[in-house]
Amino acid sequence: MKNTIYCKALFHLPENVHYFSGHSLGPITKNAKQQLQQGLHEWENKLVNAWTDAHWMDLPKHCGDKIAPLIGAKTHEVIVCDNTTLNLLKVLLSAVALNNKRKIILTEQGNFPTDNYIAQSVANVQGVTLKALPKKDIIDALNESVAVLMLTHVDYKTAEKWDLAKITKKAHAWGIITVWDLSHSVGMMPIDCSNSAVDFAVGCTYKYLNGGPGAPSFIYVNERHLDLAPDIQGWMGHQQPFAFLENYIPAHGIKRYLSGTPCILSMKALAGALSVYEHLNLQVIEQESQKLTNYLIECCAKHAPSLTLASPRESSVRGNHVAFTHPQADKLACALNANGVVVDYRAPFIRFGISPLYLNHTDLDCAIKILNDLM
Amino acid sequence: MKNTIYCKALFHLPENVHYFSGHSLGPITKNAKQQLQQGLHEWENKLVNAWTDAHWMDLPKHCGDKIAPLIGAKTHEVIVCDNTTLNLLKVLLSAVALNNKRKIILTEQGNFPTDNYIAQSVANVQGVTLKALPKKDIIDALNESVAVLMLTHVDYKTAEKWDLAKITKKAHAWGIITVWDLSHSVGMMPIDCSNSAVDFAVGCTYKYLNGGPGAPSFIYVNERHLDLAPDIQGWMGHQQPFAFLENYIPAHGIKRYLSGTPCILSMKALAGALSVYEHLNLQVIEQESQKLTNYLIECCAKHAPSLTLASPRESSVRGNHVAFTHPQADKLACALNANGVVVDYRAPFIRFGISPLYLNHTDLDCAIKILNDLM
Repeated sequence: MKNTIYCKALFHLPENVHYFSGHSLGPITKNAKQQLQQGLHEWENKLVNAWTDAHWMDLPKHCGDKIAPLIGAKTHEVIVCDNTTLNLLKVLLSAVALNNKRKIILTEQGNFPTDNYIAQSVANVQGVTLKALPKKDIIDALNESVAVLMLTHVDYKTAEKWDLAKITKKAHAWGIITVWDLSHSVGMMPIDCSNSAVDFAVGCTYKYLNGGPGAPSFIYVNERHLDLAPDIQGWMGHQQPFAFLENYIPAHGIKRYLSGTPCILSMKALAGALSVYEHLNLQVIEQESQKLTNYLIECCAKHAPSLTLASPRESSVRGNHVAFTHPQADKLACALNANGVVVDYRAPFIRFGISPLYLNHTDLDCAIKILNDLM
Repeated sequence: MKNTIYCKALFHLPENVHYFSGHSLGPITKNAKQQLQQGLHEWENKLVNAWTDAHWMDLPKHCGDKIAPLIGAKTHEVIVCDNTTLNLLKVLLSAVALNNKRKIILTEQGNFPTDNYIAQSVANVQGVTLKALPKKDIIDALNESVAVLMLTHVDYKTAEKWDLAKITKKAHAWGIITVWDLSHSVGMMPIDCSNSAVDFAVGCTYKYLNGGPGAPSFIYVNERHLDLAPDIQGWMGHQQPFAFLENYIPAHGIKRYLSGTPCILSMKALAGALSVYEHLNLQVIEQESQKLTNYLIECCAKHAPSLTLASPRESSVRGNHVAFTHPQADKLACALNANGVVVDYRAPFIRFGISPLYLNHTDLDCAIKILNDLM
């Protein structure tokens, strides 16, 4: 683990672009490109035998093994497959089943929409109620009637961060099962699922992990729940997928959360992208992130005062993007993009996502200069 | 539409390989490779803006539009996303909901395992019963207690083919909703979902459609059912995914069957692979397939009499692979592979999959010669 984490040389980034949208889609790494080319070569030359000879069958686990240390999990607790929406469906079904005497899934209003849509799906099929409350009311709503608490670690709009360990502990005190969406935090800060005793988690790999557009998502299941059989029974989650048995027998451990055939090409790119993390220290990434996001906020206050900070000012409760409001936020985002400062707009916010893997103070100075010129 | 369908020049196939496993994983086409390279280029250069500027958002529909004519569907009835297991989950939930006074999902014993595993999942969460009967008993079991009939058009082991139009009609006469898995037939024969009034269908794109390992699957929903809201509610199936609304409102039409973010890299390869079909005639593909499979069966009877045919002899009730039993089928499959004749083994069968897009009589003669030498 090195103490420097700026490694732009590992990425392919266009010249004259300052990329502040890694919270939406991370850029391509040289390793992802190389691994995907290798996948094409394997398909072309090994054909169907690549499933075994090129170890395609192992990719969901291989990618899971690489993600485990990023979320403080044991390797046998993590696997990669499908998308975040569907993985959330799987773990919510399990979570509700574990607490089946209770009838409430509690979550936050304004959570990333797909999380709440799919939680509503689970509520509908399982005959429980989805209760979505404002952030400030969540803790007071924890009680013995709540089956599952589903939260997103870092808010997709404001970047406000929950204290994952503290909230998990409070929920457990009430006998509540916890489900965390780590999409907007994984890769940018230490997360400690095992020590926090998180029950279930899912997350996106195409944001800060740079896995590629629509890269498959990860599932974490705490080892104490791995004897539970998932409700969604697919052949890849079978103990012996190639025995083609009539009856479903869940695979040992985390593999039981696989469904159908994994999308190998997307997974090859992800495997490559994850190798960047083998030499990085998450504590240092977090420190550097906080320096950069603080610097952005300070510079904006000075040079672009018409931007109003919508993210928390205090970096310890904030993730890696910074959201602002502005009377013409959408137009401003367009103008910044046209000038090589790639930010995004999620009404009513303009968002600057900061990954210290490929952004540094120089990028921020350039962005601020362009922003100042546009004002 | 041309009348010749042999187009091996559009594929990258290793020299000295006779590829008889297209029923498992189709080989790479030049177009798939080129499209995937384009996808990498878009990711590298357009970054997050490729979702709109490179039309990534349209890919699920774009691929669906290309598959629609292959299954006799209207373009607004087909979309591509997720894997076959999960798509089957979605359509089975819809099918059961449409017939919610009835309590049985009927299917075939020995159906592809993931189909029956996932049907059991649906039965469990919806409180209905999965009834799996031998093929010969299916028709007699159709009655007014059956909610859904789920069948696989061409059997993955024996290649035995159901008469899709006839069975669908019989099921409808009893008020039964039909769900077809077209994985082992799509691309190799005309299929007429609209005229047969099929209710729902799903299918694999990595077999005869050559979409690539784990390429996303397709969903067909007959237009008369498109007003039904799916049980699995994901943000990509929302009417306005980027409005980030609190409540789920299903998209108009087939897009409501999308779940989370589509796997773009895998989908780019599929889009390329599907372009091969724009100039091909399915009737001619079927005729040529029947000639080749018949020829294989005749040659084996003459030159490899220890192989016992396990597929139907009559080509009108058979798909594109031919299964045989043999006392040492597994060893024989290995030996054929080692000699460049890529077949597969699914206990107790050795399977020869035949796509007339890249196989011809010369390949069959070579395979038979090698088989004969090995005997």
